[in-house]
Amino acid sequence: MLTLDKIYHAAYVLRQVARKTDLIAAPALADDCELYLKTENLQVTGSFKVRGAYYKISQLSEEEKAHGIIACSAGNHAQGVALAAARSGIESVICMPDGAPISKVEATKAYGAKVELVKGAYDDAAARAQQLQKEKGYTFIHPFDDDAVIAGQGTIGLEILDQLADVDAVLVPVGGGGLVSGVAFAIKQLRPQCKVYGVQAAAAPSMRDSVAAGEQITLDSVSTFADGIAVKHPGDITFKMVNEYVDGVVTVTEDEIAAAILALIEKQKMIAEGAGAVAVAAVMFHKVELAGKKVVALVSGGNIDVTILNRVITRGLVMSGRSATLVIALEDKPGQLQGVSEIISRCGGNVVQVYHDHADPNMAINSCYLRIGLETRDHAQVQQIRDELTAAGFKLV
Amino acid sequence: MLTLDKIYHAAYVLRQVARKTDLIAAPALADDCELYLKTENLQVTGSFKVRGAYYKISQLSEEEKAHGIIACSAGNHAQGVALAAARSGIESVICMPDGAPISKVEATKAYGAKVELVKGAYDDAAARAQQLQKEKGYTFIHPFDDDAVIAGQGTIGLEILDQLADVDAVLVPVGGGGLVSGVAFAIKQLRPQCKVYGVQAAAAPSMRDSVAAGEQITLDSVSTFADGIAVKHPGDITFKMVNEYVDGVVTVTEDEIAAAILALIEKQKMIAEGAGAVAVAAVMFHKVELAGKKVVALVSGGNIDVTILNRVITRGLVMSGRSATLVIALEDKPGQLQGVSEIISRCGGNVVQVYHDHADPNMAINSCYLRIGLETRDHAQVQQIRDELTAAGFKLV
Repeated sequence: MLTLDKIYHAAYVLRQVARKTDLIAAPALADDCELYLKTENLQVTGSFKVRGAYYKISQLSEEEKAHGIIACSAGNHAQGVALAAARSGIESVICMPDGAPISKVEATKAYGAKVELVKGAYDDAAARAQQLQKEKGYTFIHPFDDDAVIAGQGTIGLEILDQLADVDAVLVPVGGGGLVSGVAFAIKQLRPQCKVYGVQAAAAPSMRDSVAAGEQITLDSVSTFADGIAVKHPGDITFKMVNEYVDGVVTVTEDEIAAAILALIEKQKMIAEGAGAVAVAAVMFHKVELAGKKVVALVSGGNIDVTILNRVITRGLVMSGRSATLVIALEDKPGQLQGVSEIISRCGGNVVQVYHDHADPNMAINSCYLRIGLETRDHAQVQQIRDELTAAGFKLV
Repeated sequence: MLTLDKIYHAAYVLRQVARKTDLIAAPALADDCELYLKTENLQVTGSFKVRGAYYKISQLSEEEKAHGIIACSAGNHAQGVALAAARSGIESVICMPDGAPISKVEATKAYGAKVELVKGAYDDAAARAQQLQKEKGYTFIHPFDDDAVIAGQGTIGLEILDQLADVDAVLVPVGGGGLVSGVAFAIKQLRPQCKVYGVQAAAAPSMRDSVAAGEQITLDSVSTFADGIAVKHPGDITFKMVNEYVDGVVTVTEDEIAAAILALIEKQKMIAEGAGAVAVAAVMFHKVELAGKKVVALVSGGNIDVTILNRVITRGLVMSGRSATLVIALEDKPGQLQGVSEIISRCGGNVVQVYHDHADPNMAINSCYLRIGLETRDHAQVQQIRDELTAAGFKLV
């Protein structure tokens, strides 16, 4: 059973490997509360996972250590275990689904693990890890449903209280529930009046639904780009702890997560992955009543593939009215393009892309499409441009 | 004249507004030295500029403060002055060229400044600022050539020595030279054996060339996406100080800067702007002999427009062999696409884009182009794919 002294012990052990990450004010991200970010995306390996993994490994017997360890993950847990094992001087094997991004596979190898790529999805990799565990006697490191792992993650709660002693509320991303269990436990022991909320992706609300149902439910599918918290079934230990120590679990949409990632880039100059940004999204989109409070949003990780990052930025710009695409059906006669350009320019929009197709087979012969990519200030400006174009007789598609 | 006690005084004054930014180890960015990043991109306003601006304003007379202040900038200085003035309770006007990114103009306004957009480039905005200064009696805040401003930036040197007492070398971005002057002065007073190097963009090497020439030179043009250090002419004070306190000024190319930005995103989960990444680029590309040393690269700012960031990521991926585009001249007969796909797949490349044009007017009628976008591991893998395609008889264009 988890006790506070285990978390203190984990904090002591972790001084050898984990950073005490900074707590950074983020006034531009919150309009009605005093928001701080606990920046575990700046943790070694790019996520909090190294805390639980390293503490768990430190608690293994010499015999267990001698056998080496095995884990299964497509992402942060893989890197956390790989580094924790290397720093503990023991061998690790990580089973990863072969669809995992090249960057994550390479990072896991670079931290010193032996990576076995398994054809299929996460479940196939997990099955292979169990098989290898039996065959070779490795010790399996669970990503969340383990007291020592939870104690390691709980050290973040201690740090938050040290960095902001009078914190009123802490929001924590929830996948399997290991992080929120550890953080909530630590905070409730020391400052019970501080609220702790879990945040899930609306497309993977296994803990939220389990708490609502009063029993652990299993989702048929989870489809979110917050892959770090795409978990179908909460853990046994974590489900109990969330019921006991967490004040509520809320959800955020994919678009809200993308907007949070973009805001973190622009306002805070840091990268969060999808899972890492959900707590910030919950604050930005007022999923919890926080007005006037001192609030910490835990940014749990930053391991996002840069190709996905590019798409998120693009989507986030559209979402926040900072980018827009207009498709206009033009009559094919001189001066039309100039007319459109003049209106956009007058409204202060910045044209970044023009695609003018006379040959679209879906159009009448004497007309054509004009597609214009714009850089804009906000939704109001986009609407103004649309209105003025319509008023001037242009047909927006 | 600058003295160490002024820098200590600045550090005291700045406790009210600036963060003591974290020093973060970056083992994955350096192959032969122990590298740490001084993360001024995580400073309030997203750059170090608030330090100099706030300290300068704190040193103004009550009469000067009452007149309000004026500054001219397209970027970080604008935001630094705007916040510093607001926190000092005085009025500020910032002249910005009308081509400045919307995000920077909006940020400057959000920090509380009155922004005047001036048609033209930086020089036009500067001329307008001087005109307004004369007409209205504002106090002008120079971006770098001012002892109080330099003292403010010098506080970073004190923090580095506090955070890594036995540092061997510090690399600092150089535009006008205010930052490097302050940092080098502070460090050389307290730990003279520590080397301090300046880093400029190869496309804007005004300080490097001035030091080499033994006099301040003026560049005809500067063209770098590191706009924060695109300065044609070093300051009078800073030129003297660089000569006296800096151990050398080196340069990095645009591609090296892009690669450094990408590495900071992927390995350190943080955003640097072009100017902010030059010191990291200098370490990554071995512009200075640092083997075995404890090194700090100063990441001076993170205010990069996200649309430019998207392009930098794309370019950085190509530069590091993580992305490649192959153009193949195919005979227009069945099975060709399959043959190409099979080779790419066998080599472990991941196809992310296919463009197959039968109708290119430059090609013979019975042939066509196939353009394939690939996600790859490194340059060696790209070369392997190219070699195997060539060996199989495909013509790479």
